[in-house]
Amino acid sequence: MAKRVRVVVVGAGFAGLWATRVLARGGALVTLVDRHPYSTFQPLLYQVATAGMGKADVSYPIRTFAARWPNVRARRAALSKVLPAEKRVEFEDGSGMDYDYLVISTGVATNWLGVEGSRANALPIYSLDDAAVLRRRLQHCLEDTAQGRRESTHVVVVGAGATGVETAGTLAELRRRTLPLTHPEIKPHQTSVTLVERFDYVLAPYKPRLRDQAAGALRKRGVRLRLGSTVKAVDEDAVVLEDGTRLPSDVTVWALGVTAPKQVSDWGLPQGKGGRITVTEALNVPGHPEVFVAGDLAGPPHPLPQLAQPAMQMGRHVGEQILAAARGRSPRPFSYRDPGIMATVGKAEAVLQLSNGLTMHGLPAWLVWIFVHVAYLLGGRNRISVLVNFFWRYLGPRRSATSVIQ
Amino acid sequence: MAKRVRVVVVGAGFAGLWATRVLARGGALVTLVDRHPYSTFQPLLYQVATAGMGKADVSYPIRTFAARWPNVRARRAALSKVLPAEKRVEFEDGSGMDYDYLVISTGVATNWLGVEGSRANALPIYSLDDAAVLRRRLQHCLEDTAQGRRESTHVVVVGAGATGVETAGTLAELRRRTLPLTHPEIKPHQTSVTLVERFDYVLAPYKPRLRDQAAGALRKRGVRLRLGSTVKAVDEDAVVLEDGTRLPSDVTVWALGVTAPKQVSDWGLPQGKGGRITVTEALNVPGHPEVFVAGDLAGPPHPLPQLAQPAMQMGRHVGEQILAAARGRSPRPFSYRDPGIMATVGKAEAVLQLSNGLTMHGLPAWLVWIFVHVAYLLGGRNRISVLVNFFWRYLGPRRSATSVIQ
Repeated sequence: MAKRVRVVVVGAGFAGLWATRVLARGGALVTLVDRHPYSTFQPLLYQVATAGMGKADVSYPIRTFAARWPNVRARRAALSKVLPAEKRVEFEDGSGMDYDYLVISTGVATNWLGVEGSRANALPIYSLDDAAVLRRRLQHCLEDTAQGRRESTHVVVVGAGATGVETAGTLAELRRRTLPLTHPEIKPHQTSVTLVERFDYVLAPYKPRLRDQAAGALRKRGVRLRLGSTVKAVDEDAVVLEDGTRLPSDVTVWALGVTAPKQVSDWGLPQGKGGRITVTEALNVPGHPEVFVAGDLAGPPHPLPQLAQPAMQMGRHVGEQILAAARGRSPRPFSYRDPGIMATVGKAEAVLQLSNGLTMHGLPAWLVWIFVHVAYLLGGRNRISVLVNFFWRYLGPRRSATSVIQ
Repeated sequence: MAKRVRVVVVGAGFAGLWATRVLARGGALVTLVDRHPYSTFQPLLYQVATAGMGKADVSYPIRTFAARWPNVRARRAALSKVLPAEKRVEFEDGSGMDYDYLVISTGVATNWLGVEGSRANALPIYSLDDAAVLRRRLQHCLEDTAQGRRESTHVVVVGAGATGVETAGTLAELRRRTLPLTHPEIKPHQTSVTLVERFDYVLAPYKPRLRDQAAGALRKRGVRLRLGSTVKAVDEDAVVLEDGTRLPSDVTVWALGVTAPKQVSDWGLPQGKGGRITVTEALNVPGHPEVFVAGDLAGPPHPLPQLAQPAMQMGRHVGEQILAAARGRSPRPFSYRDPGIMATVGKAEAVLQLSNGLTMHGLPAWLVWIFVHVAYLLGGRNRISVLVNFFWRYLGPRRSATSVIQ
């Protein structure tokens, strides 16, 4: 490279890490910034929330990631301002950095959808802290129920996308297999897991056959499905549906969509649907070609699902375009190569749909699901540790008692 | 057993778990109570503090432990009152339990020794929360130092017992091997690890040859030893010695002795040295033979070191005596079978001293140390996970960068 470009990558999710990796290998001087000292593997957050894994299993220190390349630095800071005219970013602590190219990959935030009481009474699973809070809340409710200080621990999961289905399925398995051993004081009628979805089916992006497969697997595990039901309000002790039904709820999990965080509007960049930053087909910002956006926050001409694959591919593309631009070439448009989608319902049960139309479910799909998730986990130690946890949770001796809400 | 005795075990450390195990196998109706929902494996807390392991690696849910036996229940509660005359305990939440026999194994608390500023400015490593707080404090200091918001991250460890030596040794290794990769912005003179000890040697309970071996291993790793130095005060930014020396300290670790927590005096039981509960040779309380004390809080006629082995043996003894008493036999005196002591300094370095006088150091001692610690960890999953972490930390590829203060 003729000159060493300085790139600041803000946000160490899939998009930020993949962009950093490409830029690092291309010899750019990269600073990877995140508001946390770690990167979070979001697809497994539901495992943290349901006590199957620890925080350390699904997070990875950004400084350890950066240590792989001499030309990459990591830094803990929260973005407060983007000054594209000055090619500079500023952070909440008052410091700032100049850049030649900027990658914004900070992700999005929980979308409360304006539902009354949702922000006050429901718990999201978008960040590592969210997952830990939900886990503690479940633990406390169960302990209080066991000790007779609380009537029940009914859980209502709102939203039957992948996160909602995975959370509800895992909680239902815990309820059936683990609770009778760890909380023998609690009677079956004192707990329940309900999944509420406004569509008439779960897992909207999947083919009807797989949706039915997943719904059947959830029912088999004891999940109460409330399909075709829109949530009107979340109270402290209930989820209220549009038709007036009150579902008793001691723990309400908010597994609905996400939206751009409010502070994005302070950055002075064009915003489109859901507050996402408007980008060209090459994923940079109109008028500021040196500012790229990747991941959930990018609002490209053809919106993409908020999954790991699009984020990783956008990150890689953005990294490549910056390296090309630094060599004087103009950026190429991004195109998403869809490998397919998958979601797990519980032990030995998952659904998988390849982009070529092939589908799979049950044990084979579950094994593929595990393989893919573990393969993409960062860092060898995490990989091994997560595999151990997985197999222990599902295949180990005394399998029903070894994982518990703690 | 003629009748099923009701035993309440308060405190799920080594003593409480071992007592519970014996009582459970003997058919007693046991309730295991702890203020946390988990039991903590204290000997590895320094690994949590130095980011080698996650909280989940060194803790185990008490409800999962109790689930092993149908006659054992677990309960999260903090002891507030012992009413020996009524054979009843009461908890901070206002609830209570009647017992036939009571085991008090709640452990002890940090001993600030009346040193000025110690409680306000030093961090202990006695509980899991302590370890997590220390880890976060280190992470923040290092990040701030890397970003130029703070001059330095000097660590002073007070007390060269096993915990102090293990913490100082591990931090020194992190400083030398990991920091240059993860925090390349920090210059060597901006960090240091100092170990302060009032005796003229480290590891007082060991033979002089092993003390020297450990001291040499610490020095080799770059630990600054201040032996024969008594701490007079702990300031926000320094540790002040009796001779007036101010050791700059950004993070002060309090690895000194422990003492009975204040609330013990509310329990109406006889207390001896250090506030420990006075017990007979059989480990029960004079005048209240159905109340047993095991672990660090027990003040038996011949005081024992505050280690896992004495706690486990006391727990086992207390469990056996209760089973015997329930059958009408009188309790036998406790005698400690000392297997020896060991401490690790860092990678491939430990000291070991058997009670028969045999000593060992270096790699062989380190391997024994790992084996013993992992063998005693509760729960298969933890065992495997901890082994993976250990070998990854010390033997894995890119070994110097895979563990980091996060």
